Amino acid sequence: MRLAVIPGDGIGPEVVSEALKVLGEVAPTAETTNYDLGAARWHSTGELLPESVLGELRQHDAILLGAVGDPTVPSGILERGLLLRLRFEMDHHVNLRPARLYPGVRGPLADAGDVDMVVVREGTEGPYAGTGGLLRKDTEHEIATEVSVNTAFGVRRVVADAFNRAEARPRKHLTLVHKTNVLEYAGSLWSRIVEEVSLEHPEVTVAYSHVDAATIHMVTDPSRFDVIVTDNLFGDIITDLAAAVTGGIGLAASGNLDITRRNPSMFEPVHGSAPDIAGQGLADPTAAVLSVALLLDHLGQKEPARRIEASVAFDLATRDQSSPGATQAIGDRLAALVSSNVRTAG
Amino acid sequence: MRLAVIPGDGIGPEVVSEALKVLGEVAPTAETTNYDLGAARWHSTGELLPESVLGELRQHDAILLGAVGDPTVPSGILERGLLLRLRFEMDHHVNLRPARLYPGVRGPLADAGDVDMVVVREGTEGPYAGTGGLLRKDTEHEIATEVSVNTAFGVRRVVADAFNRAEARPRKHLTLVHKTNVLEYAGSLWSRIVEEVSLEHPEVTVAYSHVDAATIHMVTDPSRFDVIVTDNLFGDIITDLAAAVTGGIGLAASGNLDITRRNPSMFEPVHGSAPDIAGQGLADPTAAVLSVALLLDHLGQKEPARRIEASVAFDLATRDQSSPGATQAIGDRLAALVSSNVRTAG
Ligand SMILES: CC(C)[C@H](C(=O)O)[C@@H](O)C(=O)O
Ligand SMILES: CC(C)[C@H](C(=O)O)[C@@H](O)C(=O)O
Repeated sequence: MRLAVIPGDGIGPEVVSEALKVLGEVAPTAETTNYDLGAARWHSTGELLPESVLGELRQHDAILLGAVGDPTVPSGILERGLLLRLRFEMDHHVNLRPARLYPGVRGPLADAGDVDMVVVREGTEGPYAGTGGLLRKDTEHEIATEVSVNTAFGVRRVVADAFNRAEARPRKHLTLVHKTNVLEYAGSLWSRIVEEVSLEHPEVTVAYSHVDAATIHMVTDPSRFDVIVTDNLFGDIITDLAAAVTGGIGLAASGNLDITRRNPSMFEPVHGSAPDIAGQGLADPTAAVLSVALLLDHLGQKEPARRIEASVAFDLATRDQSSPGATQAIGDRLAALVSSNVRTAG
Repeated sequence: MRLAVIPGDGIGPEVVSEALKVLGEVAPTAETTNYDLGAARWHSTGELLPESVLGELRQHDAILLGAVGDPTVPSGILERGLLLRLRFEMDHHVNLRPARLYPGVRGPLADAGDVDMVVVREGTEGPYAGTGGLLRKDTEHEIATEVSVNTAFGVRRVVADAFNRAEARPRKHLTLVHKTNVLEYAGSLWSRIVEEVSLEHPEVTVAYSHVDAATIHMVTDPSRFDVIVTDNLFGDIITDLAAAVTGGIGLAASGNLDITRRNPSMFEPVHGSAPDIAGQGLADPTAAVLSVALLLDHLGQKEPARRIEASVAFDLATRDQSSPGATQAIGDRLAALVSSNVRTAG
């Protein structure tokens, strides 16, 4: 297994280092190569993602990314030039974001119930296409446009993936989240494709929720969701909310998948670079560790993936939630659990 | 005071009737004219909002709307053809949505703190502009676009209104909610205008939050928000979430304001027509009643507006939350409270 590692900015390197510690326990022969992309590189060379690096990244089986973003870099530069560029160049059309309320974890809801959902967020189009512009900038007649681009090709492959995932889960339930009553054109395309693909999955029950109503359900009745499929922007919004509801972005993992496997998929915690706590060893590396589990699962290494998840579940159930410990301590605990687990789960 | 009343669909007529009952107590001379717009009219005549009705509506001081939407009408027809058309024709650029956690109300959060915010949602542009289309429909090469249109004119008037409101509130705090790191063009316009207008309001402190992070804050620390200013779609999403956090859309009121007063402003509960509980007298009319308070406030009738709000606050603090009562009972209670309040608050 050849892994490209982009530790990135802020707490990125700290959490990645713990994630690799855990990976080392289950996949001691994995080869990792570090790529220094992010704020530091941009400051010293002006580079965000050179073509040569892109070429090298493509030679790997998967990419592990820490976080991207720094207060010393104008907002959007690193996000669009590095993170989103990677997602688009690598055709990461399925942005997979599970949200599960682990036993022992106290989220912000008084009574969340049994939350275990997977959001399949489209990752390569929608309002993220970067299409749009400014006209008459800095005049009183300025106009700014943003175009959401949705293609049948792009929507179908994501919807198909979401149905496959729903079918493989016990509840076999899928919810389309959109805003079809206002976004007439994109809403029509998404709805028709969900209807079409649903014919191939008669066992999957299908629901629809407007994105605004979905945020209500997410705080009043999150256990209603099983698999959610949605566009890039709505997915961005509801996965942060789902993460918050299930105990915070310190625990939320994600995979940016090229389902065709033409390009390496990329795994990253949902959280950002958190510059306010960077360098202090305070960040929770659990989301990065769970991202490694998603990575292993994607590469077909189901058993080590399950072992990591089980170790996280055990640690969360037994952690002192009021002081979960520092970055390294959590990483050490998870690494120990994963290796002690070898016989029972292996 | 001449009011146009659009009871609309589902629970709309039920909650409007209670709202008018309460209005009658504080403004017995108000004249109301009913307009039958909504699903029934569309079914019988195919009409959504005839020009003649639009002309008549313009002759009023304000509009009170119940709810719009019915399962027998294809999704979007009534929303776009009636509700959004009213907002656009009447230039309702400030969509005002207060969210306050009233004492006695239990929302879904274990520990919400002291929530009292106002969202100023842009109401006449953004992704709601209706600009976009389908190309190669029903082929595998279909493309759907949605264009978010943002003008300096449109953004500035809303941002200016939000700053005015922030300045008039004790905390004098304003948060711009957007997604500037991805929506480069619209994000740039919104950010520059907020910065510009902030110079005229040195007392107002300004914060920025990406919309995804804002949903997290809304469930982990909602009391951080005072005034939020945001675009039409982000505002749609976060006001539903804010309503949920503060006890549900049964309590959330809104005003669609034309600040220039060239057109009558329109007041409506944030909730929809709720066809599942329509006709059963189960809907909570509180949101409609609070919308009447916003209406009176907008028309300069501050004292009766405060009196209605105080009555709602009293009722919520003393209600049996497990069985708040039926639509009429709540309306009767609020009407009685409002009239009994005459001397003390008047
Ligand atoms: C950093 C930002 C560009 C990114 C996104 O919007 O996709 C982030 O919020 C995420 O969800 O991964
Ligand atoms: C019904 C719908 C068109 C409307 C909107 O999206 O604005 C509603 O959700 C609202 O918030 O008033």
